[in-house]
Amino acid sequence: MFKKVLVANRGEIAVQIIRALHDMNIKAVAVYSTADADSLFVKLADESVCIGGPFPDESYLNMAAIVDAAVLTGCDALHPGYGFLSENADFAELCNQCGVKFIGPSAKVINLMGNKGHAKEAMKKSGVPTIPGSDGFIDSVEQAKKVAHQIGYPVMLKAAAGGGGKGIRKVADDDELLKAFQDTKREAKLSFGDDRLYMEKDLNDAKHIEMQVIADEHGDIVYFPERDCSLQRNHQKVIEESPCSEINPDKRKELGQIVVNATKGIQYTNTGTYEFLMDQDHNFYFMEMNTRLQVEYTITEEVADVEIIKAQILVAEGERLPFTQSDCEVKGYALECRIDAEDPSNNFAPSPGKITSLHQTYGTKGVRVDSGIGQNDVISPYYDSMIAKIIVHLPTKKQAVHKMRRVLNEFHIEGVKTNRDFLIALLADKHFLAGDFNNNYIESTFLKEWMKKHGKK
Amino acid sequence: MFKKVLVANRGEIAVQIIRALHDMNIKAVAVYSTADADSLFVKLADESVCIGGPFPDESYLNMAAIVDAAVLTGCDALHPGYGFLSENADFAELCNQCGVKFIGPSAKVINLMGNKGHAKEAMKKSGVPTIPGSDGFIDSVEQAKKVAHQIGYPVMLKAAAGGGGKGIRKVADDDELLKAFQDTKREAKLSFGDDRLYMEKDLNDAKHIEMQVIADEHGDIVYFPERDCSLQRNHQKVIEESPCSEINPDKRKELGQIVVNATKGIQYTNTGTYEFLMDQDHNFYFMEMNTRLQVEYTITEEVADVEIIKAQILVAEGERLPFTQSDCEVKGYALECRIDAEDPSNNFAPSPGKITSLHQTYGTKGVRVDSGIGQNDVISPYYDSMIAKIIVHLPTKKQAVHKMRRVLNEFHIEGVKTNRDFLIALLADKHFLAGDFNNNYIESTFLKEWMKKHGKK
Repeated sequence: MFKKVLVANRGEIAVQIIRALHDMNIKAVAVYSTADADSLFVKLADESVCIGGPFPDESYLNMAAIVDAAVLTGCDALHPGYGFLSENADFAELCNQCGVKFIGPSAKVINLMGNKGHAKEAMKKSGVPTIPGSDGFIDSVEQAKKVAHQIGYPVMLKAAAGGGGKGIRKVADDDELLKAFQDTKREAKLSFGDDRLYMEKDLNDAKHIEMQVIADEHGDIVYFPERDCSLQRNHQKVIEESPCSEINPDKRKELGQIVVNATKGIQYTNTGTYEFLMDQDHNFYFMEMNTRLQVEYTITEEVADVEIIKAQILVAEGERLPFTQSDCEVKGYALECRIDAEDPSNNFAPSPGKITSLHQTYGTKGVRVDSGIGQNDVISPYYDSMIAKIIVHLPTKKQAVHKMRRVLNEFHIEGVKTNRDFLIALLADKHFLAGDFNNNYIESTFLKEWMKKHGKK
Repeated sequence: MFKKVLVANRGEIAVQIIRALHDMNIKAVAVYSTADADSLFVKLADESVCIGGPFPDESYLNMAAIVDAAVLTGCDALHPGYGFLSENADFAELCNQCGVKFIGPSAKVINLMGNKGHAKEAMKKSGVPTIPGSDGFIDSVEQAKKVAHQIGYPVMLKAAAGGGGKGIRKVADDDELLKAFQDTKREAKLSFGDDRLYMEKDLNDAKHIEMQVIADEHGDIVYFPERDCSLQRNHQKVIEESPCSEINPDKRKELGQIVVNATKGIQYTNTGTYEFLMDQDHNFYFMEMNTRLQVEYTITEEVADVEIIKAQILVAEGERLPFTQSDCEVKGYALECRIDAEDPSNNFAPSPGKITSLHQTYGTKGVRVDSGIGQNDVISPYYDSMIAKIIVHLPTKKQAVHKMRRVLNEFHIEGVKTNRDFLIALLADKHFLAGDFNNNYIESTFLKEWMKKHGKK
């Protein structure tokens, strides 16, 4: 059993990992940058080590400094949280080589799933439906046309080496194809030095549905109820809910079987999440797997009635899963709102600063506030702007949304701006309430209306 | 449907009632004393009315001022909370006469259950087991001896008009009886001008078990899982848990049927709690009924998965209960610790003052903090010292107690002293963990040990 664990993260998630460790009578060591010296997670840890300057590559991405801290403080294991080094196979490998158990999957499987092409192949092998597209690369416009006709327009042309929104084009019909093919190829060559392209069907009006699993080292695997994370702005999730109103128990079980098989197929251990697009006919298409805890694991803890960070730690200790599949049936409805320190009236620009007054609502049944901030904390400009997650879990969506609106109305912070009022408006939106939204809904519809009323004049 | 409701209370419970009203889109009006002008509950209310000075009889017991405030602000109804006027039949009657619906049972039934003798008679009629004792009054030592032999020593001799710990004596055997009879009779005469005595079996080594019910105006009644509130100090509950480890589902159902029948028998509406003593053979003996919400309704909300204040409001509106008996099965285990502003090292003397620093732990699954205080609040010397309730709800007692200890360790307050460390010690006690305690346990055993280590030197 672990006696001491290093928390290789900051902010909100570092706070929750420290709490989980303390719930299990395990000591927690925090590592922090000079910008975070006075942060809540540093105060809550049993020991803490400053590992460098405020820029992430000086500290939270500094593998050597972090592993050094773990070894020097005598940690048995390390929890990477989300973001930063949590999906870095080299880091996982380095930890394990230094005798510090990485609380997550093996370096090998992190590596596999980190490569989009390899991940897609592995999923296909396990029978997971993937987005229809070219088998391998598209070498000519003729081939592109042929594949496009097979899978149906609209399609996406993508650079094999692409990323960050570059080397990617949506194509509506044959007329657009030639120019798109040439432009994408040129951009791919320029941006990545690799002009190989592939094609996928465009599933833009789909929902973002994800399913989390956890597997122990004895071969037991459990899937959790799905999450609907379609409400996104700028590729960031804004509100997550579980379960998805459009997925019935049979469909859930079917998807669950698919991800359990895939998890077995890739010999995955610890927790991870399969992200899918779901089209209007409720067909699923694998996008990618996150080989780590995600921000929104909270709503899954609520509807499945489990504690996931604790289970991760147990699994890493070589223990069996502390719950079974039948323990994880859907219980009620949960949603999460992310409170970000940003200014919606100024195009959601980050709003760092010192918190001068804070009332984070808590209390009454079904309300959970997983926060990383305390009174007088400073919101740093160096990191993600998410400062707290508000989770409400009640028998029905209607009850939960009512309560969430009240909780947000009561949430009070001074010194930084937040997206609170944007969230309150979104919670009142009839499309949100009806579950009638896809992953473009905020950007294509809701935000435009909202900006008319609240945007910069 | 109610549009505006007056909250006739203060502190923690006023906060939770206001939140429940807001969850239901009902406006909340606070009434407050001059001592509470800057309190959290006043800030959260939509309107507020100062009703008098800091002493309770100037404000929170001032019926006319409170009902005036309700009428003048156009309230449809009034929620009395717990304590103060919540069990005052005259107050309930006055509200209803002024067109302000009292959110609670009828004045008639409050009156009935407020009289211990009448309550016991009513319970007997409905088949509720009561503490064995004399039928009516004891007129002579001979009669006292006869009854004592029938019910078995030890017994309690009690003044019919008694209260406040006066006119009551424990009797161990025949030898003590004569003196006890004469002394109690004399004391009763002196204290209450009424020397009538009655006798009850002494059930001192029993558990305090209570069962809450809720009834609507259409005849539907639901009972909730029992609470074990045996951990008391100075007749105040310290830690409450639900369910009780010694009560199995059959026993729970049996007790549930008993209280449902009684509720029907006395035509009770809204919520109320039957308090019992349970002896070591798991026999129940009715003590009294609280015709109002109790402090510890929170753990019942958790294990039954219901919202009780909301249900009270619905019932008062004439609606049907929003849940059924089968919805209220036991789900996991919940416990509550009461944070009091008091100094355990100085015989638990109240510790009023200004809060200069506050970190009320919240976050992670299963943690709920129902608090009445905010940053910079002043804990007033005029009122009850309870400032927050921490509730943990998890699948098992072991998990919940671990988490509660961690949450209390993280709870931080400066400016006033609290019982936090006393609670942490109690949570580690092996008798507490084993469920092996009765309602004398803290005073007779735990406290003595604790005082040796932590009491005033």
